[in-house]
Amino acid sequence: MSLVLDPTAQDLLFREARTANTFTDEPVTDEQVQAIYDLVKFGPTAFNQSPLRITLVRSPEARERLVQHLAEGNRAKTAAAPLVAILSADNEFHEELPALLPHFPAAKDMFFSERPVREGSAAMNAALQAAYFIIGVRAAGLAAGPMTGADLAGVQKEFLDDDHTPLMIVNIGKPGEDAWFPRSPRLEADQVITTV
Amino acid sequence: MSLVLDPTAQDLLFREARTANTFTDEPVTDEQVQAIYDLVKFGPTAFNQSPLRITLVRSPEARERLVQHLAEGNRAKTAAAPLVAILSADNEFHEELPALLPHFPAAKDMFFSERPVREGSAAMNAALQAAYFIIGVRAAGLAAGPMTGADLAGVQKEFLDDDHTPLMIVNIGKPGEDAWFPRSPRLEADQVITTV
Repeated sequence: MSLVLDPTAQDLLFREARTANTFTDEPVTDEQVQAIYDLVKFGPTAFNQSPLRITLVRSPEARERLVQHLAEGNRAKTAAAPLVAILSADNEFHEELPALLPHFPAAKDMFFSERPVREGSAAMNAALQAAYFIIGVRAAGLAAGPMTGADLAGVQKEFLDDDHTPLMIVNIGKPGEDAWFPRSPRLEADQVITTV
Repeated sequence: MSLVLDPTAQDLLFREARTANTFTDEPVTDEQVQAIYDLVKFGPTAFNQSPLRITLVRSPEARERLVQHLAEGNRAKTAAAPLVAILSADNEFHEELPALLPHFPAAKDMFFSERPVREGSAAMNAALQAAYFIIGVRAAGLAAGPMTGADLAGVQKEFLDDDHTPLMIVNIGKPGEDAWFPRSPRLEADQVITTV
């Protein structure tokens, strides 16, 4: 066994965890979301930046507005999910760097004075944080249903602003009946890993 | 307790895991890397794409070539790490989509016929997979030291090709003496999460 992580945890986070397409009615509480965040906030990023923003779409009115911007095939399940989160990247994350990187506050101005550089860094590091968040949802015993099939520019206009770029929408809840399609294939290690 | 994941696993993957700056001499084997990949390959991506590529820099000659492209502060630790991986995004990932998404092989041509679209999708989804990989390194009881402080264009020219965009370099091994700086602050949940 090359892995130290307990097999039960391996199953919970990766091997048996699946992208759910149906959910039970059981609510997902703010306390659960807080616990998820308080776990995954420790995931590493460049310069300890923290560009990920999480918009919880809870009100029926807001849910309805969101669903309009989704691809047809994503609408019914998103309308019915116990909780839906819009994950976005804050392109002005550098304003927080002096607080997040107290031993190197100059990083803010040395590396991130230009908006295009910030957008690139925010996109990659918020994506890392989005992956940590998905793992965290699973650590809470919940299923995540991440989706990019949406008019993301429309989602941005409807819920965010010019400084926040949406990455994906994530349905969250306990998996319901027929929650997933059969597992699709993955690339084998020798298709992905080379040695020099 | 809002989390189902065992507290020992929480510590291993997030709470006590740290970005290591020193390592012991203990080797990291190909079997360990294979086990890490075979766990994290199940992490979700859009259209089940798999753009992440992992280049293991094992030979002293290749390690020396890589180190030249790193920021000064990243050189000594990378020269000394038991294993170093270059993580990159394969911008031609769509060629594998019919195999990876057998129920929707048309996705390859419907969504990914244009290179700029592929590059954007590869960048985000390879970043998700890079985060899963970092979690997997920790699941193997090893520390990861991800770095973007490098001339990534130089790394691409030296080790990859025009179809592969480097995302980061990751040092991997058992943490050594004085392996980490004090933990830097994180944003609180109420700075990151809003509800609509």
